[in-house]
Amino acid sequence: MTAPAGLLAALREIVGSERCLSRREELLPWECDGLTLHGSLPSAVVLPRDTHEVARIVRACRRFDTPFVPRGAGTGLSGGAIALDGGVVIECAKLDRILAIDGANRLAVVQPGVVNAALSQAVRPHGLFYAPDPSSQMACTIGGNVAENAGGPHTLKYGTTTNHVLALELVLPDGERLRLGSATGWSPGVDLVGVVVGSEGTVGIVTEVTVRLTPLPEATETLLVLFADVVSACRAVGAVITSGLVPAAMEIVDRRTIDAVEASVYAAGLPRDAGAVLLVELDGPAEALPPQIERIRALCAVEGARVQRARDDAERERFWRARKGAFGAMGRLAPDLYVHDAVVPRSRLPEVLARVGEICDRHRLRLSNVFHAGDGNLHPNISFDRRDADELARVVAAGREILEACVAVGGVISGEHGIGTEKRDFMGLVFSADDLEAQHRLRAAFDPDGVCNPGKILPTPRFCVEANPKARGYDHVPL
Amino acid sequence: MTAPAGLLAALREIVGSERCLSRREELLPWECDGLTLHGSLPSAVVLPRDTHEVARIVRACRRFDTPFVPRGAGTGLSGGAIALDGGVVIECAKLDRILAIDGANRLAVVQPGVVNAALSQAVRPHGLFYAPDPSSQMACTIGGNVAENAGGPHTLKYGTTTNHVLALELVLPDGERLRLGSATGWSPGVDLVGVVVGSEGTVGIVTEVTVRLTPLPEATETLLVLFADVVSACRAVGAVITSGLVPAAMEIVDRRTIDAVEASVYAAGLPRDAGAVLLVELDGPAEALPPQIERIRALCAVEGARVQRARDDAERERFWRARKGAFGAMGRLAPDLYVHDAVVPRSRLPEVLARVGEICDRHRLRLSNVFHAGDGNLHPNISFDRRDADELARVVAAGREILEACVAVGGVISGEHGIGTEKRDFMGLVFSADDLEAQHRLRAAFDPDGVCNPGKILPTPRFCVEANPKARGYDHVPL
Repeated sequence: MTAPAGLLAALREIVGSERCLSRREELLPWECDGLTLHGSLPSAVVLPRDTHEVARIVRACRRFDTPFVPRGAGTGLSGGAIALDGGVVIECAKLDRILAIDGANRLAVVQPGVVNAALSQAVRPHGLFYAPDPSSQMACTIGGNVAENAGGPHTLKYGTTTNHVLALELVLPDGERLRLGSATGWSPGVDLVGVVVGSEGTVGIVTEVTVRLTPLPEATETLLVLFADVVSACRAVGAVITSGLVPAAMEIVDRRTIDAVEASVYAAGLPRDAGAVLLVELDGPAEALPPQIERIRALCAVEGARVQRARDDAERERFWRARKGAFGAMGRLAPDLYVHDAVVPRSRLPEVLARVGEICDRHRLRLSNVFHAGDGNLHPNISFDRRDADELARVVAAGREILEACVAVGGVISGEHGIGTEKRDFMGLVFSADDLEAQHRLRAAFDPDGVCNPGKILPTPRFCVEANPKARGYDHVPL
Repeated sequence: MTAPAGLLAALREIVGSERCLSRREELLPWECDGLTLHGSLPSAVVLPRDTHEVARIVRACRRFDTPFVPRGAGTGLSGGAIALDGGVVIECAKLDRILAIDGANRLAVVQPGVVNAALSQAVRPHGLFYAPDPSSQMACTIGGNVAENAGGPHTLKYGTTTNHVLALELVLPDGERLRLGSATGWSPGVDLVGVVVGSEGTVGIVTEVTVRLTPLPEATETLLVLFADVVSACRAVGAVITSGLVPAAMEIVDRRTIDAVEASVYAAGLPRDAGAVLLVELDGPAEALPPQIERIRALCAVEGARVQRARDDAERERFWRARKGAFGAMGRLAPDLYVHDAVVPRSRLPEVLARVGEICDRHRLRLSNVFHAGDGNLHPNISFDRRDADELARVVAAGREILEACVAVGGVISGEHGIGTEKRDFMGLVFSADDLEAQHRLRAAFDPDGVCNPGKILPTPRFCVEANPKARGYDHVPL
């Protein structure tokens, strides 16, 4: 769909023609995000440099009845950052300044286009870091992290993005500027910051973020634990958590992923005879870690596992390569990768993983698993080729069955990747019509006309799905 | 104001006459909460025993156009739990069952009337505790904690209630039952749990809460640090935080509070020559604590302070008595106590405390300070006699000036005590008309007819205040 000529002229007047793209070949990079299953070409892409430009862009879109979508690095995995129905992409990559670092009060004020890893690097001289660490942290932006309430391996100890956002500046869908929260971390009145974090760009455009910074731990230890199979690795994770230990991260990488990594440029010299690898990271005061390592060693020994301890930073990095290079390495298996995302109560991990395996076998799909085991956050990855229509249909069918299996044990249909376009039509698996209506009303309080990233998260009459008449929201007692 | 006879009959039919109070003398205990400045008699008090009764009560109130207010133990300090304009109090004290404890997944499901300390006690055999610990924890309820997003001394390390609520069941103002969030802690879609926590009973009646439980720390150390004055204690707190240490709690008790405590039944044998006392609690792995104690000792020595370490649990308890007995001990000074609550950037504490002292001196008021110094969360306490109209007027005037002083340095007008009726008319100090309108819209998404705890948090045309035309929300860079 083409943007109205008047709108293009207005946008060019605001940002100049170099920062307003509208030719098809220019727009292609914005056709999809990290989820290649869904694509939609925007009618234009604008790259504002400050809040004032964002507000003017929003007002221009409104004058021409054109919806708009904020976007960061486009590393999202649920289609949240694509523009449906000829919308305009407001690309925040050039809003990339760190505005303030306040070491004494442990906070920083950043524009949304600041890259996640760059922020941690910038605050390192203050003895601080920014805790949420999505696997895409070398590319993804703080604004995108806010939109998706991003997690990462260290979520286990440090929480997700919502635990690290103190205040926000937001341009509302009517072009008004709003400040939410406060640098103190306390926010009297209705908690609007919590609503914006994880709203996937549907309530406005975030133009400034005040983040909480975390003291760098005094010491870090990384363990590579080798198991015969994924199920015994899951049991060990459960035992560690139940023992009261709080590792910084506990990540499981399965056999097929190890093979792919070892055959790729990310090869880390991982033992090829392990059925699954568990990465455990511990951090904190130096004196506290050796006894924790011994406890973990003992708990893992119960499952017959071997524990290796990284002797130095180089080895630590090598251990992590298996985890962090996994998605890149998957490129060897097939042209496309569907990174699924769901969460189940930790204690149900073994049975759910077995069930996910059965589902993919039945659909003849290539499954691998890399996941945040400590959080119960699964990432079943399906390698496929989207040009193969039959395989594509099997990928979609298996995806739905995987979510149903998670919901059946008290899990949720998304962890850290959002709903986007990917899971919009699955919201009815768990939410009743009343539940969805409550979410609709809340969103409409910000965006009554539905112009801000429309078609995402909530099923609408237009993208009609059946809401489950029996659903009463998530059941909150794991059975 | 009297309840309509038809409504009383309907309520009695739902809960029986023993759990429906309507005679003036029966209603008196519900006239105010912990804030004795504001009082209002409800037209009736009902005590439901399950969610179904709550839903029926709400529908009955709607049929008779009568507003309603949920209430727990009534320990709140901002008038949030009083019924204005003849509303009905829905007293949740009898919704007091712990429905499930799941040690493996570290969570519990409770009814809102469960007492905070009782929950921690019940989960102790699982090696777990419920982290938010308001000073009123022996009496206050989880439902009230959710309403106020309650904090406590250990907020410094563990966060406030919002960090510990996984899922909720809510009866909406139209009597519908809604489940929000999930036991996994992940909640796809719009974050409604975050909206309900801290909403002070204005979006519905919470009838079940799934809380996150925290592993009991392996070891705990408590230090009593004696300073010459409050300002040097504040500086030491800043130095500890800046050093990267994360104590579980850092609480300051000033000279006047020590005197009151030592003259009371809470007497703890505290040294009478200290200008201020700082309580520091450290917890974590046993090996980690001794080096942390040494670092704190060194940082406090810079301010000329003496550090005492609790040798056992009895001494630890004695140290804490000064903090926890403070409010009770204040009863010696005057019949009423106004426990103020505001937050400033930690680095601005010394100057703000000095300013608060000046304000109270000028108004000839008896000030004492007990506060969560690590969080920058002030509690200036003013002892007064509400029967003295002149003193009462000075208390109110000083309260406003204290808030203005906090806002002037980038602080917020409330920390853990909510807005309620107390600070409703001060919201305009920091929020513009646009900001307030956004909050109104969000609240109306749940309660379009304004029947659920009306008159709280947000100024309404009826309780007309001037919104600050220049306010842009909280400024988020502390200057």
